[in-house]
Amino acid sequence: MSLAGVEGRDTSRAQRRDVLRATAAERGLDAVLVTNLLNVRYLTGFTGSNGALLVRTDGADLFGTDGRYTTQAAAQVPDVEVLVDRGTVPALARAAVRTGTGRLGFESSDLTVDAFEQLRSVLADAAAGGTVPELASVRRAVEAQRAIKDDGEVEALRRACAVADRALAELMAEGALRPGRTELEVGRELDARMLALGAEAPSFETIVAAGPNSAIPHHRPDATVLQPGDFLKLDFGATVEGYHSDMTRTVVLGSAADWQREIYALVAESQAVGRAALAVGTEVVAVDAASRDVIAAAGHGEHFTHGLGHGVGLEIHEAPGIGPLGAGTLAAGMAVTVEPGVYLPGRGGVRIEDTLIVTDDAPELLTLTSKELLVL
Amino acid sequence: MSLAGVEGRDTSRAQRRDVLRATAAERGLDAVLVTNLLNVRYLTGFTGSNGALLVRTDGADLFGTDGRYTTQAAAQVPDVEVLVDRGTVPALARAAVRTGTGRLGFESSDLTVDAFEQLRSVLADAAAGGTVPELASVRRAVEAQRAIKDDGEVEALRRACAVADRALAELMAEGALRPGRTELEVGRELDARMLALGAEAPSFETIVAAGPNSAIPHHRPDATVLQPGDFLKLDFGATVEGYHSDMTRTVVLGSAADWQREIYALVAESQAVGRAALAVGTEVVAVDAASRDVIAAAGHGEHFTHGLGHGVGLEIHEAPGIGPLGAGTLAAGMAVTVEPGVYLPGRGGVRIEDTLIVTDDAPELLTLTSKELLVL
Repeated sequence: MSLAGVEGRDTSRAQRRDVLRATAAERGLDAVLVTNLLNVRYLTGFTGSNGALLVRTDGADLFGTDGRYTTQAAAQVPDVEVLVDRGTVPALARAAVRTGTGRLGFESSDLTVDAFEQLRSVLADAAAGGTVPELASVRRAVEAQRAIKDDGEVEALRRACAVADRALAELMAEGALRPGRTELEVGRELDARMLALGAEAPSFETIVAAGPNSAIPHHRPDATVLQPGDFLKLDFGATVEGYHSDMTRTVVLGSAADWQREIYALVAESQAVGRAALAVGTEVVAVDAASRDVIAAAGHGEHFTHGLGHGVGLEIHEAPGIGPLGAGTLAAGMAVTVEPGVYLPGRGGVRIEDTLIVTDDAPELLTLTSKELLVL
Repeated sequence: MSLAGVEGRDTSRAQRRDVLRATAAERGLDAVLVTNLLNVRYLTGFTGSNGALLVRTDGADLFGTDGRYTTQAAAQVPDVEVLVDRGTVPALARAAVRTGTGRLGFESSDLTVDAFEQLRSVLADAAAGGTVPELASVRRAVEAQRAIKDDGEVEALRRACAVADRALAELMAEGALRPGRTELEVGRELDARMLALGAEAPSFETIVAAGPNSAIPHHRPDATVLQPGDFLKLDFGATVEGYHSDMTRTVVLGSAADWQREIYALVAESQAVGRAALAVGTEVVAVDAASRDVIAAAGHGEHFTHGLGHGVGLEIHEAPGIGPLGAGTLAAGMAVTVEPGVYLPGRGGVRIEDTLIVTDDAPELLTLTSKELLVL
């Protein structure tokens, strides 16, 4: 599903529902029951913890939530009829039967086996001997819409990236990244700084990895004390209006050894090549390969143990995946990370990661912190 | 599933797996595939973002994760054989077939429809014409185990509650809760303070609700400015070692009006009655009713619009639910909240919430902040 035809890609919630409505009609569905809460948020603006949406091809959409959210739903979802019921999904299912739905789409990537069985049973009961709606998975139709960001979403991502940039800049300026401190202390300060700068939350559990720990791609910060000469790898992000930024920088504390300069330069080159490969119409596997080939040619292929990047938005990992097994091509408006790494077990590792927007021109870089090797 | 027979309720991860193993044997299963990530964490100690566990009645358990977590799995799950594979669940499913599993339990409350279909297909392929394992849901067997906390879990909850208590005490001592500030500012300071005190994260999005907003049970903090005479409702918690604390306090800024003192006293009495009803063997509906009756008798029944409480642990909301539609009885070691509220739309509301441990004696109170009406 491409939104390329939408003027300026500034789609409102109503336009997003219309896109899903068109998908439903194409697939011969009378309605789609959206249960994935982030998809519900994307299509309605609702941010509570319980809500579902019935998008109907006849345009009479219905939003369901429970009594805790009556006020919030009225404020956040003013343009869709709201149904308040303790059993949100069953209530929408009964409404679908009442309004004569023949084929009902559902999200098989979201509904659990138990929830699906409950849905089937509610539909059968509500039909009361009449025609029971036929269920058909819509697969990841809304996730495919979400992969292409509109202008408002790009602006939220810009702000989320700016918060992360500034938090790191402040910590560096204050000398907070120095030998003697622990990974946990640095991680907590980075989190607190992002919150103070307006983040709703960190995008994920901040990774701070010093010395040999930097060779562990997803090290959890612990009481390890930062030492002179250590690589210090920071992988973190901020959430703003629900949108996640994602950035990794690796610095050296004190002075850099030759092997550190060497693998840093290699990863930086690989990352630049990966960013340059971000173009509309390029296969995601080709982007991964372009970046990976640089590292493999230097004999470090086996030390780059993960995919090159991923989409970011309402989730920290979303479509498109950019890796050796990825599928599909890049489109304008996709928000993606480029994050190659080289990890030398027991010694140290480097990862450099940016968040960018794919455009018809060069990609727009959202994470602006320098990628020179910083020796602090 | 009750752990009451386990000495001191200090169950190790291995003991927890043995309890599930016994459940599996009772139900005629050869193995259980645990896919819920929190259940995996509970049974193994693994804290990464991708892991699954095969618990086998013959004792040969298998933990699956992907290459990002090879090192972490070895450190966190030293006592279970680790299988590293990009497709974690398919790899465990193939292992189950290889080891002659006849009946395989799975978590129907966790597996999505798509994941279930993939599991069925992998099992059929792996059997290659031989006997395909029969799938049977274990329902919420691990969640039922998790409802009863062991000593280590209670200690983590104690520390999580202490962090929240102290964060609030510090903010009060510094005069941070005062007219002129915004809900968002107060919420961010509370979050930052909890992080500085050692929380891994807030337990959930902190609720700060001032004046009329305090009548909205789950108000999201916004730019509303605190005014003299406002109720200020704070619902928040800290996460420590994955365990969540949950506490609500409502204070008055400046001086309290009679109607405020009146509903505060009512909610405080209701909450005390609810806490006193927490006893081993009591039906959860009876606990809810005891507390609710106090509010109903004062004519405010319709203003108490939610359940009385819920279990807390690795999730902020887990078993048991304590509400009018709850099922089951309390057992020693359960960690629960008691949180009645009275909400007067357009005027203001009060909620008072503690986290407590059910014991054979009086419940142990973990959230120690005063419940006197504080006029700041």
